[in-house]
Amino acid sequence: MGRIKTDSNLTRKDVIISKAATLFREKGYKAASMRELADIVGVEAASLYNHIKSKSELLHEICFNVANRFSHIMDEVEAEKISSLEKIEKLLRFHINGMVHHFEEVYVSDREWKYLSDPYLSNFQNQRRTYRKRFAAIIEDGIRKKEIKKIDPTTAVLIMLHAISGIESWHRSKQKINGDELEENMITILVGGLKK
Amino acid sequence: MGRIKTDSNLTRKDVIISKAATLFREKGYKAASMRELADIVGVEAASLYNHIKSKSELLHEICFNVANRFSHIMDEVEAEKISSLEKIEKLLRFHINGMVHHFEEVYVSDREWKYLSDPYLSNFQNQRRTYRKRFAAIIEDGIRKKEIKKIDPTTAVLIMLHAISGIESWHRSKQKINGDELEENMITILVGGLKK
Repeated sequence: MGRIKTDSNLTRKDVIISKAATLFREKGYKAASMRELADIVGVEAASLYNHIKSKSELLHEICFNVANRFSHIMDEVEAEKISSLEKIEKLLRFHINGMVHHFEEVYVSDREWKYLSDPYLSNFQNQRRTYRKRFAAIIEDGIRKKEIKKIDPTTAVLIMLHAISGIESWHRSKQKINGDELEENMITILVGGLKK
Repeated sequence: MGRIKTDSNLTRKDVIISKAATLFREKGYKAASMRELADIVGVEAASLYNHIKSKSELLHEICFNVANRFSHIMDEVEAEKISSLEKIEKLLRFHINGMVHHFEEVYVSDREWKYLSDPYLSNFQNQRRTYRKRFAAIIEDGIRKKEIKKIDPTTAVLIMLHAISGIESWHRSKQKINGDELEENMITILVGGLKK
């Protein structure tokens, strides 16, 4: 995964990518223009091209950054000597945190990846499929060990990941609980729902 | 709610609305044209206008049909003499069924309602808000009666409704369990997660 990026070691390119994620979420990738991005970054459109080649490169960066984080946490969780239910809890907390604290990027990678072009598109789809399979395998293992109810693992992954992407509407709601409470509530319901 | 519509008492207009829902889901409301709709229905574009005034009327019909079903089931469930958890289960089964068996309409009303124009838009948004509040009130009642874990009711509604809208990806998946199994799995996890 490489170093964690703090505000102080963000490169100019990182800043551009982050602003692009905000723009792509708000307007959609298709409708967003490099000119608008330049306005938001506060530079001339021409000078954006010193850092990135094209609008599509920005989408690649966003999607593959997120994909890297997914595969990194999955490697980490699979290697840990903890119960299946604890593994699932860890993955869920990772996803909830992503939706709360890195909303723009995660949202864009989840909704706009279809505008990637090949070879990136098929590679990204393949990574998504693999991720979900590995997640389902942890659930399956938990069922075998009788930690988890007898359910369809693929359906359980679908339920949990979609419930978490619903945090989108939490961002939009006016009267809302804070991010930590949201996390605890989601874990209570989702992990509670799996537990045998 | 009025009579249940079976295939035999569908009017020409019903057929057009149903095909419109399919078209709007596939292409998005904005991108879809009346000409394409006429092609799918198998008539001349001009003859569509004998049944409906405009593309926007189709969106109104779809969204408000779904809204009517929501408010109808909520009235029904609220009036029943069953536990809070049973009420929630009933609502969840209703939503799961909608996503499995009336996918096109439910999907369009959930994603494309933002293209409604006022007064329909604010009316529809208001109905959505009211529906979610009534749903949250049932959860709150269940918490008070100690049937349900101490959780934030609004978050619980968010989790459950988004988990169910994830059935969209179930429709797209190749190797999938059948609709009834999907329903049972979802109920096991979601109702199980709320239960004290």
